[in-house]
Amino acid sequence: MKEAKPRVYFATKNRGKFLEAARVADSFKISLKHLKFEKQEIQAWNLTEIASHAAFQAAKVTNKNVVAEDAGFFVRALNGFPGPYSSYVFKTLGLEGILRLMRNVGNREAYFQAAVAYCKPSHRPVCFTGIVKGRVARHKRGTQGFGYDPIFIPSGGDERTFAEMGTDEKNLNSHRAKAFARFCRWFLGRSHGVSSETS
Amino acid sequence: MKEAKPRVYFATKNRGKFLEAARVADSFKISLKHLKFEKQEIQAWNLTEIASHAAFQAAKVTNKNVVAEDAGFFVRALNGFPGPYSSYVFKTLGLEGILRLMRNVGNREAYFQAAVAYCKPSHRPVCFTGIVKGRVARHKRGTQGFGYDPIFIPSGGDERTFAEMGTDEKNLNSHRAKAFARFCRWFLGRSHGVSSETS
Repeated sequence: MKEAKPRVYFATKNRGKFLEAARVADSFKISLKHLKFEKQEIQAWNLTEIASHAAFQAAKVTNKNVVAEDAGFFVRALNGFPGPYSSYVFKTLGLEGILRLMRNVGNREAYFQAAVAYCKPSHRPVCFTGIVKGRVARHKRGTQGFGYDPIFIPSGGDERTFAEMGTDEKNLNSHRAKAFARFCRWFLGRSHGVSSETS
Repeated sequence: MKEAKPRVYFATKNRGKFLEAARVADSFKISLKHLKFEKQEIQAWNLTEIASHAAFQAAKVTNKNVVAEDAGFFVRALNGFPGPYSSYVFKTLGLEGILRLMRNVGNREAYFQAAVAYCKPSHRPVCFTGIVKGRVARHKRGTQGFGYDPIFIPSGGDERTFAEMGTDEKNLNSHRAKAFARFCRWFLGRSHGVSSETS
């Protein structure tokens, strides 16, 4: 008899995020289902806290095994700003606001981080993170992607921003893909009776 | 027989906020008690949503009649930024960050807003707001108060910033005092059988 794929629900309103995650899950033979659920986001300095709370809440309300994700853009010279509030800051200040804050700032280190939390109803959530390091560009460049992509140059590559890369190239090693891959490895180990809650 | 003062619990970790609110409540003969409770703050564009959620959650957990408050500093030219995330932005960008974003910006309109939500266990919260309008100063001035006070000049006064006023003078017509006074008027009407949930 063919063994059924383990099934997990991804609570997100964002279809792009779901497709990116589903591709990672599929490579681990995990069936990721789209749960169109408005997740509850708390205010916190830490993405893992935000994602864990969202997963816990979604599992409780829907009575399903869910993952919830949160991501942010962190600029070192701005003490991590915009961090957990990247979406709000993007909509209010925009990229121009970040570039203005970074004018004449020498240290341009920045990173994208994603946190993926998994939760079963009435259980404690388990959280996994992924990071892409890089720096803030002097000017925006490129038209692909979204959010802070046009001003982020990942380390270890050429000088292109995320917005100058195709979605496939960007997603291959994105913070979100890394966090989801960590979750998938843990999840598979766990569904075979192995416990390894390191993240 | 002497009638007991109506009693409400203010869920806050901040003693300064409690004292400011207690003074307002006292002038309405309402007994405000300090509930040292870490309120849950959700991410939202709207302070009323944040305060209402916090009050609902605190009432549920403590089984008391509570008020919860949220406040923010809104700059019109920055699309309301930092708004609901004023505290985080103050800790990361600081006043210098706001002044940098406002350099050479003509429209300096800004306001402080507070939202005070009242909730009985298992009831829907009711929310009241208060606003102080003014503008963003060119430079910070004054040493009193906290947060954005040194760069906020309230309308209708002289050219002093909030940080150049004494606490008493500032609090007399603060956004927080206004929101609490609105709550108190409603609460007294309600405890005498009059329903007036306008805010």
